[in-house]
Amino acid sequence: MTRQRRKSKIGMSPGSLIYTGERTTEPVKISVMDYTPDRVDEFSDASLDHIRACLAHDSITWINVSGIHDMEIVEKIGKIFDLHPLVLEDLVNPRHRAKMDAYDNYLFLVLKMVFQEPDQKALQYEHVCLVVGPDFLISFQEREGDVFGPVRDRLRMAKGRIRKSGADYLGYALMDMIVDQYYGILEQMGEEIDIIQEEALENPSAETFSAIHSTRHQLVLLRKTIWPMRELVAGLLRGESALIREGVMVYLRDVYDHVIQVIDTVETFRDLLAGTLDTYMSSVSNKMNEVMKVLTIMATMFIPLTFLAGIYGMNFTYMPELDWRYAYPVFWGVVLVVFLAMFGWFKKKKWL
Amino acid sequence: MTRQRRKSKIGMSPGSLIYTGERTTEPVKISVMDYTPDRVDEFSDASLDHIRACLAHDSITWINVSGIHDMEIVEKIGKIFDLHPLVLEDLVNPRHRAKMDAYDNYLFLVLKMVFQEPDQKALQYEHVCLVVGPDFLISFQEREGDVFGPVRDRLRMAKGRIRKSGADYLGYALMDMIVDQYYGILEQMGEEIDIIQEEALENPSAETFSAIHSTRHQLVLLRKTIWPMRELVAGLLRGESALIREGVMVYLRDVYDHVIQVIDTVETFRDLLAGTLDTYMSSVSNKMNEVMKVLTIMATMFIPLTFLAGIYGMNFTYMPELDWRYAYPVFWGVVLVVFLAMFGWFKKKKWL
Amino acid sequence: MTRQRRKSKIGMSPGSLIYTGERTTEPVKISVMDYTPDRVDEFSDASLDHIRACLAHDSITWINVSGIHDMEIVEKIGKIFDLHPLVLEDLVNPRHRAKMDAYDNYLFLVLKMVFQEPDQKALQYEHVCLVVGPDFLISFQEREGDVFGPVRDRLRMAKGRIRKSGADYLGYALMDMIVDQYYGILEQMGEEIDIIQEEALENPSAETFSAIHSTRHQLVLLRKTIWPMRELVAGLLRGESALIREGVMVYLRDVYDHVIQVIDTVETFRDLLAGTLDTYMSSVSNKMNEVMKVLTIMATMFIPLTFLAGIYGMNFTYMPELDWRYAYPVFWGVVLVVFLAMFGWFKKKKWL
Amino acid sequence: MTRQRRKSKIGMSPGSLIYTGERTTEPVKISVMDYTPDRVDEFSDASLDHIRACLAHDSITWINVSGIHDMEIVEKIGKIFDLHPLVLEDLVNPRHRAKMDAYDNYLFLVLKMVFQEPDQKALQYEHVCLVVGPDFLISFQEREGDVFGPVRDRLRMAKGRIRKSGADYLGYALMDMIVDQYYGILEQMGEEIDIIQEEALENPSAETFSAIHSTRHQLVLLRKTIWPMRELVAGLLRGESALIREGVMVYLRDVYDHVIQVIDTVETFRDLLAGTLDTYMSSVSNKMNEVMKVLTIMATMFIPLTFLAGIYGMNFTYMPELDWRYAYPVFWGVVLVVFLAMFGWFKKKKWL
Amino acid sequence: MTRQRRKSKIGMSPGSLIYTGERTTEPVKISVMDYTPDRVDEFSDASLDHIRACLAHDSITWINVSGIHDMEIVEKIGKIFDLHPLVLEDLVNPRHRAKMDAYDNYLFLVLKMVFQEPDQKALQYEHVCLVVGPDFLISFQEREGDVFGPVRDRLRMAKGRIRKSGADYLGYALMDMIVDQYYGILEQMGEEIDIIQEEALENPSAETFSAIHSTRHQLVLLRKTIWPMRELVAGLLRGESALIREGVMVYLRDVYDHVIQVIDTVETFRDLLAGTLDTYMSSVSNKMNEVMKVLTIMATMFIPLTFLAGIYGMNFTYMPELDWRYAYPVFWGVVLVVFLAMFGWFKKKKWL
Repeated sequence: MTRQRRKSKIGMSPGSLIYTGERTTEPVKISVMDYTPDRVDEFSDASLDHIRACLAHDSITWINVSGIHDMEIVEKIGKIFDLHPLVLEDLVNPRHRAKMDAYDNYLFLVLKMVFQEPDQKALQYEHVCLVVGPDFLISFQEREGDVFGPVRDRLRMAKGRIRKSGADYLGYALMDMIVDQYYGILEQMGEEIDIIQEEALENPSAETFSAIHSTRHQLVLLRKTIWPMRELVAGLLRGESALIREGVMVYLRDVYDHVIQVIDTVETFRDLLAGTLDTYMSSVSNKMNEVMKVLTIMATMFIPLTFLAGIYGMNFTYMPELDWRYAYPVFWGVVLVVFLAMFGWFKKKKWL
Repeated sequence: MTRQRRKSKIGMSPGSLIYTGERTTEPVKISVMDYTPDRVDEFSDASLDHIRACLAHDSITWINVSGIHDMEIVEKIGKIFDLHPLVLEDLVNPRHRAKMDAYDNYLFLVLKMVFQEPDQKALQYEHVCLVVGPDFLISFQEREGDVFGPVRDRLRMAKGRIRKSGADYLGYALMDMIVDQYYGILEQMGEEIDIIQEEALENPSAETFSAIHSTRHQLVLLRKTIWPMRELVAGLLRGESALIREGVMVYLRDVYDHVIQVIDTVETFRDLLAGTLDTYMSSVSNKMNEVMKVLTIMATMFIPLTFLAGIYGMNFTYMPELDWRYAYPVFWGVVLVVFLAMFGWFKKKKWL
Repeated sequence: MTRQRRKSKIGMSPGSLIYTGERTTEPVKISVMDYTPDRVDEFSDASLDHIRACLAHDSITWINVSGIHDMEIVEKIGKIFDLHPLVLEDLVNPRHRAKMDAYDNYLFLVLKMVFQEPDQKALQYEHVCLVVGPDFLISFQEREGDVFGPVRDRLRMAKGRIRKSGADYLGYALMDMIVDQYYGILEQMGEEIDIIQEEALENPSAETFSAIHSTRHQLVLLRKTIWPMRELVAGLLRGESALIREGVMVYLRDVYDHVIQVIDTVETFRDLLAGTLDTYMSSVSNKMNEVMKVLTIMATMFIPLTFLAGIYGMNFTYMPELDWRYAYPVFWGVVLVVFLAMFGWFKKKKWL
Repeated sequence: MTRQRRKSKIGMSPGSLIYTGERTTEPVKISVMDYTPDRVDEFSDASLDHIRACLAHDSITWINVSGIHDMEIVEKIGKIFDLHPLVLEDLVNPRHRAKMDAYDNYLFLVLKMVFQEPDQKALQYEHVCLVVGPDFLISFQEREGDVFGPVRDRLRMAKGRIRKSGADYLGYALMDMIVDQYYGILEQMGEEIDIIQEEALENPSAETFSAIHSTRHQLVLLRKTIWPMRELVAGLLRGESALIREGVMVYLRDVYDHVIQVIDTVETFRDLLAGTLDTYMSSVSNKMNEVMKVLTIMATMFIPLTFLAGIYGMNFTYMPELDWRYAYPVFWGVVLVVFLAMFGWFKKKKWL
Repeated sequence: MTRQRRKSKIGMSPGSLIYTGERTTEPVKISVMDYTPDRVDEFSDASLDHIRACLAHDSITWINVSGIHDMEIVEKIGKIFDLHPLVLEDLVNPRHRAKMDAYDNYLFLVLKMVFQEPDQKALQYEHVCLVVGPDFLISFQEREGDVFGPVRDRLRMAKGRIRKSGADYLGYALMDMIVDQYYGILEQMGEEIDIIQEEALENPSAETFSAIHSTRHQLVLLRKTIWPMRELVAGLLRGESALIREGVMVYLRDVYDHVIQVIDTVETFRDLLAGTLDTYMSSVSNKMNEVMKVLTIMATMFIPLTFLAGIYGMNFTYMPELDWRYAYPVFWGVVLVVFLAMFGWFKKKKWL
């Protein structure tokens, strides 16, 4: 599916809207929150006329679009807010990396949210786009979800300064929440790495290796996702957009600190996993060594004795020892001596 | 052939035109598209006079040259457009890396297109050069091909803003298409890497390794090719050439995003492949371990017993056990006990 | 516990104070030192009114808060000094990385102190925050401790220029002491690495490996902690805060040198440990090699001889050698010759 | 010899001339080309007076000195052109890395030429220095050679713009030729690496490894040599010397492109070689694996059977099987069954 | 001892002088050279009054202090020249890394000299500090030594421009000599690496590995020492101190080139050693392979034959072959055939 997309997309004029994610039949849902310091109006399943009405007021309007597979709706919204064709193109391309584009009268942010389905190892990433204007914010999500619920609650209850601030602060609040998701994921991962490390040291098995491998795989993808987020926030901090007011900068600096801490942790985990891999390899090679030693000890002890037994199993007519009275007990004595000598030698070599 | 080239080229004055790619006898084909917002004129197999005629109009002229092995034609075109000797030299050197040179009245771009012949593993790279002037664009390809077909269609059908924009926008459209080719290649590679990874974990064979090796090889070359493309686009974005107008910058930023995403993906694939190699190595070493264990178990179980059988095969005259009534069944009992003891020990060591 | 925190914290408005470290029931202790060049007043277990009183004087006031788990106290202090909500949030988050935030009328520093519990291998890190104002300094520690004792002594005895300098110099003195803690830790680590290196070369065992592994683990975490400290001090040196006067800069440069030296040493230790790991691996593989040689020598010497003995143990009716008079001594002669030949061959191959 | 040098050199005042390369008794040869757009005068074996005469004219004078072991001549030339003592010191130190020093009235370049003696694997580097003045250029070579022959030919035949340009263009022409030498070397190396790669995959032997090793060694040295050349050209491009006129800059940019391409290729080769080493290692370990399997199959098949034969070789008086009529054929039947069972098991395990 | 130091030092006010190197009882020796272009006065074992006297003249005064363990003397000198307490603290801390601190009226340099005791492998580093003023230079060495002898000779004999130049040139002369020491060490190391490389390829032994290991260890430390020297000289070149006059800059650039060359060489050696380690590992694994092959060949050849001999050693009553007339010669024939078949197979597999 995905491959087909690119082929058909190549050579198209920029801004040609083709949704490239998984196809779904769920209807697109648009919900609107329109607020001033004094009131909040909520519209779930809002129509485009609603949006236009809200924009007319002197208020902050937050439009949340769940689902980016209906090109028609995306295009209509694009027309209302006069979005650049390239913005629309990136909006509906869920594989686009995080980035920030400052246009004259709005700011376009592509973000990546991380989450984990209950019974799956692999982390999932969701493409979330924000268009931040002077008095509006549009958020696009791939699927309907409750990720922004807490922010909605803060708006409803007028907690903190959120209702008194502009669309830029709302944008910050959403970004902060998206970045916070990474923390939970990393903490869980940190605990898994601790377990893997112990296992690799004490009791390495093929499962240990496969856990190392899959965690490393997750980290590679996580790292690929989070680095562009850093550039994004750094770009905002450099003041590339006039839409972010001075007062919000200190909050963005906080988000930046969080992104950096996520990156630090990812890099540290990579280092720890590399160490764990070495540990695993070393444990496996130690076990192999032990197997070899057992083989060598057994073979080295019995091979000469078997040879000796073979000697006295020969049928030569003239073998004087065969008729000696105490030959058999003497033979056992020799066996014992060889055994003890070998045993002592292995002890000295610390193989036993 | 290639080696000979360099030797003969060393010491030549710059601008001496010697084609250094594969020699071919196909004739060079020049096609021209001359357009204004209102009309498009196409000339396939255009002559140099055609070109001169088109340049006289107040229109955008796109000259596409398929084949760079005919020095005479290249030189003539160079004369028409007053190109620097070094530009011509780089034009006909298919091994030159991607780069951007801003001259006073034109912009010279060396690009690398990637493609894959249907039945071959190795990626092919084609040397594509663009000379972008104020109202003309010359594109040089190594071979005739339909790569720029979609752009031609957009010109013919006046899709998007292409016919209303200048030569710089046309240049962007061609670059965008060349960069888009990398996506398709990388997606296919991504799927191959997934397959290799699974194979390395489940069922490693010499073929798995050779697949890892060859994919890595491809990635090394891909990386070498794409990095200079990044510098090229970054140079354009820094505004090093006045020929790129402000309105086209936002499109170039889009191309830049794509190049960065290609680079990110290449680096991620390298990381994943490195992990896969470790997986393969570990799987192979696990298999070796298993082989060793089988050997050790077999040898350790039977070597002492063979020794015991050897004992009672000896021909000593005085061996009391030999004449015991139940010696033989007792012997089998001992064998059984040793077997069970060994078996238990291996179980405890988790070798079985 | 920690995981729960993040989940419950996500979506909260910034500045919502939730302590995320280990919970403790010890009461928070506030001690105050108020000094001018001429006098020092000390208050242990100071109340908030004390603090307000001290601030009214024309003196430097150092408030030390031991324990950051009582949100109420932290909030009250925040109110007295008019601290930003984000400062309070970072104050009570012991997992925040080191950083420097310059606010208009104070400087906020997050530092990480390292220490080692007597009987534990793992290094412990303590979250220490400094708020440096024009004539006050507030230090927050996670636990009550005597780490700042020597600075207190210097204040009491008016040693050096500490009492004659401002809050910025006091801040320097505390940072210097925190950085100095890393030295002691690193020296001890350096000695351990020397021991491990010798062990890996002479007498490698599973314990050696586990020591390499755990030291490496400690270094990864140490590195993660110290790098942000470097950025912090570099930020101060760049003069990002006007609260640091010119005269203190030379002292900060000294702290910076120390931080760099700590980083250098950590990197060097990593290099040395990587070398030690190679040494260990090589030693282990050498031992394996030796085991293999013993096995091969034993098997190679006795397998042909056992075959020979087997031959003459056969029961064919017509085997002329069996009846030869000197067959048995000749057999022993052959055994001896084979032995000597093998021995010579192994000597030549340097296996013995 | 070399070691002695440094010891005796330490503590000398700068500019003390001591030749530190291989000593040779060949006489130093000075050749001069003096040219204007209209004429070329050549003097081989020129004397210092010749040089002074040429400098008096209004022409470009190129002095080529073959051999830098005669301190007297070097010092005299230094006096004529008023060269800084440090320039002379670096001139005669063939182990100095490439660099660029801009003095007030001349530019001093240290370059490294690469070449390969017909029957040797190791690359050779020659120390070539250029002193570029406003109307003269002095080139110093370690040995007499024909490396600059093509440039001389271009001068004689007035090919291209070389005779119409200044000493800076001549300097470019020489640098370009030196950089071009690296191409030939790298192409040859590329072909060798292809061969090694195939060998490592198909038929790895100790020779393959030693080829990997020696190529890597060459690359390490090549890399060390070429990186400073990059800095040198970059320095010139930054316009650090006023002696390079604007018109020559475009040519230097071309040289810079070439140096970058050489560096790219070296890095790519390093990557490819690292892959080849992994391939080799993996192939070797696969072969080892195969050896182990053969051993294990043989031992596992025959050890139990040998035990069985040992059983019936025992001399117990009461062994009922021995007297059974069909015991012997039954024994062979058992042998066959064990064989087939083992064979099937190995097939299942894919060891056969 | 060292550990104790840090603990006792923590929390001290900056500038508290505690010598942290090896304690020695040798008396501190101060020697003075006072020179103008026309004369040199030397005082060995100078007193502090001497120094004061020299400073009064209009001359350059070079004070060399051998031994930094006598705090009293260091403090007195500090008072005479009005040195900052932090300068004195770093002076007597032999483990401080190289650095440059520009104070208003003097320049403080911490340098690291390398040397090698005749019979020791490990390199030794000596802490050398320079305080460069407008007309004086103080050098502090840990031990009395003749390292600066050659510079003294140049002063005495008025060789070069040293006596005509200022204290900054004298500082350069001393730095140059310290950097030159690294050359000799590196050349020796280069020769050792060549030997090790050959050994690793031809005749790897545990000693080879231990040589690789110890050289690598030396390089890690050397690298840690030399990198800060680079920063130091780069800082001087950036003109951070007004005490370095323009005319001396060209000499410092020369020192910089040397430091860079030392760093290049260290990095190259690291690369070469990494290659050597791979070579060693590969050689060892090849040897192991050979051992395994010998074992496999022996076992594979004799195990089936031993089984066959075991067959005919069985005591079944009814074994027709036993009574055949030519059974025994036929048996030997079979042995021979098996041998030859095996031999051919091994030949085909290239194991022989």
